[in-house]
Order: sequence, then C-alpha cells, then structure tokens
Amino acid sequence: MTSHSESELAFLSIEQAARLLRKRAISPVELLEVALARVERWNPALNAFLTVVGDEARRRGRAAERAIRRGDVGGPLQGIPISMKDNFWTRDVRTTAGSKILADFVPQQDSDVASRLAQAGAILIGKTNMHEFAYGITNENPHYGPVRNPWRREHMSGGSSGGSAAAVATGMGFASMGTDTGGSIRIPASLCGIVGLKPTYELVSVEGVVPLAASLDHVGPLARSVTDVCIMLEAVAGKFPKGAARPEHRKLRKSIPRRFRLGWPKQYFFDRMDGEVRAAIDTAGKCFESLGARVEGVELPHLTDSAEPSTNIALAEASRYHMSQGYFPARAEEYGEDVLKRLEKGCEIRAIDYLRAFDVKLETVNEFDAAFRRVDAILAPSLPIAAPRLGEHEVVVDGEKETVRSAFVRLSRPANFTGHPAISIPCGFTRAGLPMGLQLIGPRWSEARLLAIALAYEDATEWHKRRPDLS
Amino acid sequence: MTSHSESELAFLSIEQAARLLRKRAISPVELLEVALARVERWNPALNAFLTVVGDEARRRGRAAERAIRRGDVGGPLQGIPISMKDNFWTRDVRTTAGSKILADFVPQQDSDVASRLAQAGAILIGKTNMHEFAYGITNENPHYGPVRNPWRREHMSGGSSGGSAAAVATGMGFASMGTDTGGSIRIPASLCGIVGLKPTYELVSVEGVVPLAASLDHVGPLARSVTDVCIMLEAVAGKFPKGAARPEHRKLRKSIPRRFRLGWPKQYFFDRMDGEVRAAIDTAGKCFESLGARVEGVELPHLTDSAEPSTNIALAEASRYHMSQGYFPARAEEYGEDVLKRLEKGCEIRAIDYLRAFDVKLETVNEFDAAFRRVDAILAPSLPIAAPRLGEHEVVVDGEKETVRSAFVRLSRPANFTGHPAISIPCGFTRAGLPMGLQLIGPRWSEARLLAIALAYEDATEWHKRRPDLS
Repeated sequence: MTSHSESELAFLSIEQAARLLRKRAISPVELLEVALARVERWNPALNAFLTVVGDEARRRGRAAERAIRRGDVGGPLQGIPISMKDNFWTRDVRTTAGSKILADFVPQQDSDVASRLAQAGAILIGKTNMHEFAYGITNENPHYGPVRNPWRREHMSGGSSGGSAAAVATGMGFASMGTDTGGSIRIPASLCGIVGLKPTYELVSVEGVVPLAASLDHVGPLARSVTDVCIMLEAVAGKFPKGAARPEHRKLRKSIPRRFRLGWPKQYFFDRMDGEVRAAIDTAGKCFESLGARVEGVELPHLTDSAEPSTNIALAEASRYHMSQGYFPARAEEYGEDVLKRLEKGCEIRAIDYLRAFDVKLETVNEFDAAFRRVDAILAPSLPIAAPRLGEHEVVVDGEKETVRSAFVRLSRPANFTGHPAISIPCGFTRAGLPMGLQLIGPRWSEARLLAIALAYEDATEWHKRRPDLS
Repeated sequence: MTSHSESELAFLSIEQAARLLRKRAISPVELLEVALARVERWNPALNAFLTVVGDEARRRGRAAERAIRRGDVGGPLQGIPISMKDNFWTRDVRTTAGSKILADFVPQQDSDVASRLAQAGAILIGKTNMHEFAYGITNENPHYGPVRNPWRREHMSGGSSGGSAAAVATGMGFASMGTDTGGSIRIPASLCGIVGLKPTYELVSVEGVVPLAASLDHVGPLARSVTDVCIMLEAVAGKFPKGAARPEHRKLRKSIPRRFRLGWPKQYFFDRMDGEVRAAIDTAGKCFESLGARVEGVELPHLTDSAEPSTNIALAEASRYHMSQGYFPARAEEYGEDVLKRLEKGCEIRAIDYLRAFDVKLETVNEFDAAFRRVDAILAPSLPIAAPRLGEHEVVVDGEKETVRSAFVRLSRPANFTGHPAISIPCGFTRAGLPMGLQLIGPRWSEARLLAIALAYEDATEWHKRRPDLS
C-alpha cells in the first residue's frame, strides 16, 4: 500500500506509476480503482466517457496484480489505466464512434492499437466521447451530449478527441488514444491543457479504426506530459524507415539537442490570432531561444492555397466511406445536423478537384520539406484561440468574424495534409483561465527529435503541471 | 552479306536477326536500311509513323556495326530496329502524343523505357502514330490522319497504339512499345494480326510516358511472335516480386506446361460477339485442350458492374492530367472533337463515384483472383469484332447496335482495371481477311507462365505467320 493521496496517484506520470507498480508500492487494482472512482465522480459533469468497462478492467487489474506478485513485470504499460476514443474497435466493448448509427455496435475484434496497448499491459477503463463519427471539432454531440472543458465547463473541450483530452486532463486514466484528421488530437489537447501528438502519416496503424478520411486520418496519443506521450507512442508505433530514430522515453531527456533550429512561419500560421495566444507563443519562442534554439523565419508562401484542397479530400472521402457502409444517405435522419450537412456537401466535390488536391498536397509537402532543410521543427500556435463557449458557432479573431470550425482547424490541418508529425503542448493560460497550446511540426519520421525538443520546453515551464479545479 | 531477300530480313524473328547479327551474316546497317526502306515505301499508305529518325538510327546502326566487328555483342537487342509509340519521351526526338498541343514538343530526356531499350542495343527508327493523347481506340487522328489497317486499308488499325501495330505487322521494325489504358496495346495487336502484351500493373515503368489515366496506364511491347514480345519485355521490365518467375525467352519453350488449366468465363466475355470471333475462340479452346489444357468454366459474376467505375477512373484522371498541364480547357480548340468531349465529360465525375470505383476495383480483383486459384489463365476474345471500316461509329454485334468504342474496349478494359497481365495473340482471320485475336489473362506477375501458354498455342498454329499483302 501507499501513502499517496488519491489525487496524487491519479496524476502520477506513467513512469512514476510504473515504478511504484514494479516496486509493489501500489497495486494495479488500487491504481485502477483511483481512475474508476474519478470517472464515477467527475464524468457525469464532464461527459468524457461513453462507455466505462469497470468489470473487465478490474478483471485485468487483478490479473496484472497476480502477474506482478509472481515477479512478472510485463509490458511497459503493465497495470496503467488508459482510455480510448470511441472510434477504435474494442473487442466485446461497444464502439459507437459517437454516432447513433453505431450506438449498439460491439466489434468482435480489437483495432491494431487496442491490441498493441493490451499487449503492453495497459488497462482500458473506457471509451471516450467524441464528435459524431469524428467529423467535427467542437465535440458537441447531438446523441450523447457535449464533452465539457475541465477548466470551464461551459466551454468546449474541442474535438473530435475531446473526451480523451478531458479524461486525461482530469486524471480519469493516464493517457488516451485519439484520432486526428484535421487536428482532432491537437485541438482538444490544446484546449484542455495536455499534450497530444499526431505522428507521421502511417506510423500508427489505422486498422480497426472507424475512418473519417483515409488520406488524412492519423492515430496518436494524448497524455499529460511529453514523456507519457512518448511511452504511449512506443507501444503503438509501427515501423520507422531505416535511418529514422525510434523514440525512446528513457533516452528522451538525454537526447535534447544543445543547439537546434526552430522555424517561425512568415506566412499563414501567424496571420490572425487572439492577442493572448500571440503573446504566449512569443514568450515560448523566447523560452526556446534560452534553451539553445535559433528561431528563424521560414517561408510557406503557398500554404493558404492548401485549405480548400485539403477540405475537398476530407469531404469526398468521408462521404464515400459513409455511402460504402450504407449509412448515408440511407440513414440520413440518424445523423446530427452538422455531420449530415458535411456528408451532403462531400457528394458535390468533383473528382478533378479531388485529384487536384493531391497535386497541391505534393507541392505543400515540398514547401514544408524545404523549410525542414533549414530547421529542425516549425513553431506555431496549435489554435489561434482558446476554448469558446459551448453553443458558439462564430468567434471574433483579431477583429474578424470566423466560424469556430475554421478557427479550430486552421493551424492544425496543414500537418494532416502533409503527413508531417505535429505535437501540441501546453504553453499558457488565458486571463479567463483557459489553456493554450503551442504546436511543433517536424520532418516526417522525426518523432524522436520532435519529442525531445518538446520535452526541453516542458522541462523549462510549469504549464503542464497545472490541474483543473473540479470542485 | 546475306542471301536473304529484303522481305525475309524484315520479317525475321528477333532471335533469328540477333543470331545473324552476331554471326556477322548481316550487319546492323543492312538490317536498319531494310526497315527504313519499308517505312519509306509503305508508310505513306499506312500512316503508321509520325516521326522517322533515319539519321540518328543510321548513326547508331554504324556504331553497332563497329561494336559487333570488335566482337562486342552488346545487349540482347543489339542492332534490332524498333519503334515506339509517340507518347514515350525520346530525347531530342519530337514526342507529340498524337496531339496538336505537343506537335513541337522535343523532350530533353528519355522515358525509362526508351533508355532501357537503348541500353539493350535496340535502334529506334521512329515514333508511331496514335490516337490523340492515347485517349481513344480507333486511331482516327484529326491532326495526323488515321493509321490504316495493313490487311485492308479502308479499315481501322485500332488504337491507341495503332501505329505501333501497323509498323510491326508490316516489317517496319521488329517490335514496338505501346501503352494500354483500356486495351490500347491488345486492340491494335488483335486487329493487325500481331502479338501484344499488357503486363502486370507497374511491372514496366511509366516514367516519361505522357499519361492518360495513371491508375490504369500500362506500358508493354507489340511484336510478331510471343518470343519477340518476351525478348522486349525482358529489356523493359522492372522488378518482379520475390517468388515470381522472370520471363526468359530462352527458357520459354521448355517451360510450356504439359498440363494446365484455362478458365472459360461464364459471364461477360462471351455475352455478345461476332459469330466469326466466337468460332475462332471455340476452335482455339479445342486447340488448347489438344495441347494439355483443361478448359473449365470460371465465374466472374460482377464483372459487368465494373464498366462504369473503370470508365469513371479514366475520365476523371485524364481530365485532371490535362488540366494540370494547362492544356484543358485553356487550349480546347486544339483538341479533336472526340477527345475534347471526353475531357469535358471527365469534369462531371463526382469524387464519391471516383472513390467508389476503387472499392469496385478491389472486388473485381478479388473475383479474378478467386478464378486464378482454379486456373492458370483465362481465355477470352481480345475483341468481339474484327476491324470496322474507318469512319464507322457504330457496329452491329450479335444483332445489337453498339458504339465502336464500347465494342473495342469491352473485353480488354477489365485487365486494366484489375492490373492483371493480358496478352493478345492471333487466332484466325475473318472471311473478309481481317485478323482476329484471342486474349489470355493471368494472375499478377505470372508473365512467364502466360507467355509460355501463349507460345504453346502459337507453336500449334500458323496465324502469326501470315503477312499482309501490301502491294
């Protein structure tokens, strides 16, 4: 047994928790009960979980306990309670994808990621609430209710992995797996004050994940620290190409470069944003300089032109997927209004515009890669704003009206289009007490260095240590 | 010097010609002059060549002669005169793709295939006439005139590699390289009485070929015999996957299986065709049985449903390519009427239908692959008709009216959609003296076996030995 308070246990780092488990200072069952108790206490207010799998989690917790007693340390996540977004197939556990259409769908198989996490010893406590079919970023779900922001419950959590972000931010599990097609990991991570990584395209398997738009879909972890994100990534990542370093959390701090170069985009990313976000990123830039970074301007002159092509891919592929499954238009009345509208819009995209998008994609990739020949990573805000209130459809950014959707995805979508890895880490709080995040975008397969640079910043700041007041 | 007549030299097999060259019984210059003389004599009537590269060919012929005199045998095609369809980039040689738009285009680089053939020692004598931008199958070219069928000049050669087929059939070179997006190698090969192979998708590089529709485009050889086709394929083929046999013309005859299984499609391929074609294929089936084949029915129940999806891919990709190059719609008036109409139609394809086509493609591939678990190859006609007269737009097949275009591509297009290798070989002549071809379709990467089975039939028949009367 242990002398840690429940709250201390809930917010341990994965490394700390794993150490205590291995030393038998705490038991997996104890750690699990802490997480489940917090779910029971706080989830009714936050609505982060759609399904809680208490019984199965307890069975697995007891099995982990027996294994550890036998001296079988198991995988690196042995006994660590985690959650998964509800679009990952989980065997015998309902997988709704936040939809009414799949309200009663119970997969007979695990997604690749679910089976890798189980293999690593992680214990699934539940499936998290999300934007319907991941096709939106406010997490205002018409079927299951909105996920609320743990820092201010009348505000959005962001989406579509909002339930995952809210759960992790409040100690309902140590980490979660999300998906990111236009920013759906980084947006809620930023708005909920945690870390979220969208890895390089195809690094983490999407097998058994309900797709949104296959050309843009990415799977990645959300956690409370860069190291925890790294541990999760190690468990789920597929193969890196030859010559690319595989991230290892044990070596992460040692691998922080003494000197590195950060790109400050001259176009697009800083065009329009809230003053508080701008100030936070400016301060972060200075912090990076104090850590050995040379921050220099990089050119992304055509990035503005990528918004429409990137949207065309998402619209067309999403509509096709929903048609291929017989959901749309057959069951149109079972969709929420916003998703239905987008599915209808997706039918209007012309094939020539869809195909053109891939030509633009190549040019955009080349533009980023040219920048990456000069810098190790690009520094940008994750979003131009902090979390708006639930129900808002428009925000005013830098004096200009913009839809919440546009403001949310504007800065995260480029990395989905190009497939470059991008991480969001906490970089401050607004006067209203809402978190802000900064984004680091790196070359393909540069996760190891990207995480090391993110860790350098995290080590130098305290933002990631703040916890929302849930009382 | 040699005792062969000019005509004998022109119609040697590549193996025979190569042997005579190596023995110095003929010189490369002599062989070349035979080919060039025939081009000079017959091309005005047939219109098979758009560009003849006599000077450069003679320069290369003399170099080959010197090399052979030095005892340097060179590559397997050393000194063999060949042609290439005019959509293959050839360095310093005009490459029109049969279009007005590229009428003066002189590439600064060779296509992969052109450079591989030069490497093997082949001597390019010219670039062959084709359907404009390969976007059609009649080879009635509004800018350069139609390619005429060597067997009856008022009839079509078929396209879009019609110039290649007419050249090879008339001894204007030993072989040619063509492209096949919906049948454009097999159709003219069949209508001109020669052999044409569309290899497995991606076996032969399309680098430096003016594309039509990237998902369906294939590059392959046309020649007067299966062995010659094999020799050409050896020179241009890329890598086969592990476990797949690389075709070798020297082993081809020895590798003819004593027993093999041929699939006779119960659906689609035999639905509607000319009586003469049906009789020729029936006879071919019996011939195969006498050669050790068991001919059995195979099911392709959904193949009919693949026509529209396959067309949608072609339409959309072609239009996108022409737009990406700034040709269409900017230079609409420079296109022939038929191509322009198809480019316009391609703009109407919806992205969801384009994407759906790839789902159908997967199902179609699976349907063929299921058949290939039971048979070594599928036997079918190459086309349901022999060559119509130039200018005809409709034909009557089995009492039903059908557009020439539809009749031409109906039986060849499936192998473009699925990417399976398919070969057309001569299998008879109509009462009107026009050639007919049979098609063998095999599993992916089964070129070695497919060619061996084709050779078995060729060895047992005389059709490939007939030559058109040009007088």
